[in-house]
Amino acid sequence: MARRVLIIGGVAAGPKVAARLRRLDPEAEITMVERGKYISYAGCGMPFYLDGQVREFEELFRTAYRVPRDERYFAGERNIRVLTRTEAIAIDRGKKRVLVRNLQTGVEEHLPYDQLVLCTGAEAVVPPFEGLDLKGVYRLKDPGDAQKIMAGIDDINEAVVVGAGFIGIEVAGAFANRKILVSVVELYDQVMPNVFDADMARLFQRRLEGQGIEFYLQEKVLRFEGDENGRVTRVITDKREIDADAVVVAVGVRPNVKLARDAGLAIGETGAIAVNEYMQTSDPNIYAAGDCVETVHRLTGQKTYVPLASTANRQARVVADNIAGREARFKGILGTSVLQATIWNAGRTGLTEKQARELGFEVVTVINPGHDRSHYHPDDRTIIIKLVVDQVTGVLLGVQALGAGEVAKRIDVAATALNLRATVDDLVETDLGYCPPFNSTIDPLQHAANVLRNKLDGLVRMMSVDELKEKLDTDDDFIILDVRDELEFRDQRIEDPRVWHIPITELRSRLPEIPRDKQILAICDFGTRSYEAARMLEAAGCKDVRSVEGGMRVWPFGPVGML
Amino acid sequence: MARRVLIIGGVAAGPKVAARLRRLDPEAEITMVERGKYISYAGCGMPFYLDGQVREFEELFRTAYRVPRDERYFAGERNIRVLTRTEAIAIDRGKKRVLVRNLQTGVEEHLPYDQLVLCTGAEAVVPPFEGLDLKGVYRLKDPGDAQKIMAGIDDINEAVVVGAGFIGIEVAGAFANRKILVSVVELYDQVMPNVFDADMARLFQRRLEGQGIEFYLQEKVLRFEGDENGRVTRVITDKREIDADAVVVAVGVRPNVKLARDAGLAIGETGAIAVNEYMQTSDPNIYAAGDCVETVHRLTGQKTYVPLASTANRQARVVADNIAGREARFKGILGTSVLQATIWNAGRTGLTEKQARELGFEVVTVINPGHDRSHYHPDDRTIIIKLVVDQVTGVLLGVQALGAGEVAKRIDVAATALNLRATVDDLVETDLGYCPPFNSTIDPLQHAANVLRNKLDGLVRMMSVDELKEKLDTDDDFIILDVRDELEFRDQRIEDPRVWHIPITELRSRLPEIPRDKQILAICDFGTRSYEAARMLEAAGCKDVRSVEGGMRVWPFGPVGML
Repeated sequence: MARRVLIIGGVAAGPKVAARLRRLDPEAEITMVERGKYISYAGCGMPFYLDGQVREFEELFRTAYRVPRDERYFAGERNIRVLTRTEAIAIDRGKKRVLVRNLQTGVEEHLPYDQLVLCTGAEAVVPPFEGLDLKGVYRLKDPGDAQKIMAGIDDINEAVVVGAGFIGIEVAGAFANRKILVSVVELYDQVMPNVFDADMARLFQRRLEGQGIEFYLQEKVLRFEGDENGRVTRVITDKREIDADAVVVAVGVRPNVKLARDAGLAIGETGAIAVNEYMQTSDPNIYAAGDCVETVHRLTGQKTYVPLASTANRQARVVADNIAGREARFKGILGTSVLQATIWNAGRTGLTEKQARELGFEVVTVINPGHDRSHYHPDDRTIIIKLVVDQVTGVLLGVQALGAGEVAKRIDVAATALNLRATVDDLVETDLGYCPPFNSTIDPLQHAANVLRNKLDGLVRMMSVDELKEKLDTDDDFIILDVRDELEFRDQRIEDPRVWHIPITELRSRLPEIPRDKQILAICDFGTRSYEAARMLEAAGCKDVRSVEGGMRVWPFGPVGML
Repeated sequence: MARRVLIIGGVAAGPKVAARLRRLDPEAEITMVERGKYISYAGCGMPFYLDGQVREFEELFRTAYRVPRDERYFAGERNIRVLTRTEAIAIDRGKKRVLVRNLQTGVEEHLPYDQLVLCTGAEAVVPPFEGLDLKGVYRLKDPGDAQKIMAGIDDINEAVVVGAGFIGIEVAGAFANRKILVSVVELYDQVMPNVFDADMARLFQRRLEGQGIEFYLQEKVLRFEGDENGRVTRVITDKREIDADAVVVAVGVRPNVKLARDAGLAIGETGAIAVNEYMQTSDPNIYAAGDCVETVHRLTGQKTYVPLASTANRQARVVADNIAGREARFKGILGTSVLQATIWNAGRTGLTEKQARELGFEVVTVINPGHDRSHYHPDDRTIIIKLVVDQVTGVLLGVQALGAGEVAKRIDVAATALNLRATVDDLVETDLGYCPPFNSTIDPLQHAANVLRNKLDGLVRMMSVDELKEKLDTDDDFIILDVRDELEFRDQRIEDPRVWHIPITELRSRLPEIPRDKQILAICDFGTRSYEAARMLEAAGCKDVRSVEGGMRVWPFGPVGML
């Protein structure tokens, strides 16, 4: 008899389980139940629909060959029964059936299964702010939300986004692209908490500010206020009032686990459904995949919850394979994520420095700006890379990157390296592709790795911009030696009487001017010339020389200048 | 006493050795000798200078911070003595000195060394064609050549490039970008011989043809003819005459080994200078790096000669480290290379199918088109990927890719995987970054890997476009089942009475029409719908079903249509 497979949830993991399973098992009776009215949509495309890059709402629902992925498509092309606007109420594990309710008619029925797959996804966390019901206050969890925002988008002049995580930042970027004034309010003291370290987050924030986005960090939204028509007009925080004719609440998501929990299935320590490598829940006939499950971090072995469409897709394939009797395992994730907001790209893979230290690793890090192509190519853009490396073993633990250039490429290379437990030497020894439109002779990731090795080898002592800032706030006697050229120095510099300016091209001949016994902090644009200068000064007998890591490109304390 | 390091060659590896060594050893007396007048230039940038993307000639000689890398720069900033227009005549290994001649004055002198570094590079191979001296016949080996071509570029209407390797293709692309009619004549039966397999080369060629470049393969240039003013007017091959007011000869390069050979240093089996992991020649006091040395292929352990600036750079770092007493090894290359010509990008890493088979590997391959971003993103472009995998171990052996999209990214990911001996499963399990402007939920590399696994798992039997073409040329009775939609089918299709057209969306309901006992060859655009169709047809009882691998995107026998 044909096996009956019931899938709860029709957005990302669900349709993938169904499609793969159909190909593996032409006989299976596959039913997919979805509470909402939309199925199989590109949720991650919504911010790009909002800013107009994705032109039509329907694009988010179409296959690559432009067929709408609706109930008819699943029935006709794939022989998969789809019930939308249908909620799964309860699982009867003994009888192997699920009680579902049609949300339009109220009719309930029992759907039997041999294997059940929970793809119940995640829901937006919406704190109980007063004024949530005002017109113009949105969430962005499903395409209906995006459509509502789009319906009035031309009337939005000032928007507030609550939450500086992935969705918050991307939505803020979409508004900024539309020249809407946008402010982001975030409870944490940095953007993208848990994704970027504070230093990288600050650089990302500075760049987004340069695109017109305002940030209010460590600030708590108290309520939304509206006018007599019930339209939002202001956001009240614990520190200020911000005018707003639109608000998007994007403070995070949490896994939908009620159905699983009510059925007595194990919920993991992260609050998401617990699954084994085969994507089975604590009931071997019930699988789960996507935003409702927790997974394992491949580097730490620890449970983690990182809901992403790409992960959902990979997990769904594993589910379908196992149901069809082809043993498959999902081995976990690396926490890879990339995003785009305005002209800025950012991403990370593996552990942040903070996470690595909390796990007890002894780490060495470097923040290094580099060229994403040959510097003379017109498309060349700077990208700033942070490497986190295990000081004991040299194993790469994590990479963060941001810039207007090809950030995602370097994150993918890093993820591939992390997945295979590469050391920083492995990274440097990799024969990456070189051609001026695609790379420098030394890839920026490898350049960062070389700088890190120089640091480890004692070739250069570095000082971070934070340490430099601290020193500037003292009365200590030292020299900041800016070795950039005249133009660069005039354009943007640290304003302090202890700053000396000697271009690197003149430094060798002017070495006699430099006091040997003072501390000298060399700084340039990227950190390359300051390294050169540091070597030269040390050779000349200077006792205490540091190169400022990453140079002015990562100096976050001046006006938004050279980015 | 300070060590005396003499470097012969000042283009790529030489300056890098000098710069790194200066940082490691402030005392060393470093001298760099260069036969030409240009030093430390971006040779790989020349094609991009020719097509105007790099605006100024001087850009090719500047640091990222816009200082010209000339003799003064090396002397002033780095305390490195540079002698240009100076040829190294002979090495006296006993006395540890090199006889050099100033090419302008004719004056000769002996330069002593403790360590000698040969960075003599490669020279363009120029067959003794009759008419080589005609005006308008160029090579492209140094910036002077590029400048000569640029001087008359506005007068070029019809150009011929001799050689369809890297430089030939890039130069042809530069001409095409300038709307110059350009033909490429190549002795081999494919473009990019030894870089791409014939199937991928043909797809690349078709796409370049779509940009107006004509190719004459398996064709031998006999001579160049000129007018009464000594200007080239025609290229005569063994098959035709081609009008030309400019000719660029780019048939390859060979390592400059005369100096090394005359000194009795070992020359390797590839004809380039033999070096060990430390980049030492057979004389431990003489190092060599860059385009004049051979290296090891990391996958095969065999000696190979692949001259590239990125490799030169990495090797130079190793040389400098070893001279300075910091043991370092160069472990070899993967044969990674990427290029851009017109709108088309292409690249490969590892072994081609042909190379792998010649080495005795039992291989399985797949050619699969994919989306380089989410298909609904406006920047989405197709890239075609070929994977070469060891059938016995599942280890990835090589990847080739081409398309208008982010090819280089996938090549770098593949190179990183190859470097760490990844299996095709490792590739699929990697947590790559997903966001609509950067990727699909399944990276095209992973998509190709999934297709290959489906093939290995017996989920689908495939037929290559070559096999299909062969069948079409017979009178066999079979059905080509095109499952694309109406519009796609009208736009471009295989013209044959055995072609049936049933869109995938109708196939399930029209299954009764399909004969069960005939061979059915399903085809679509990318290979996804034909796979779906094949599974459906097999489930319906069709005995012999194949999915055409890669679909119409890789069909090279029709008119240049959908690319």
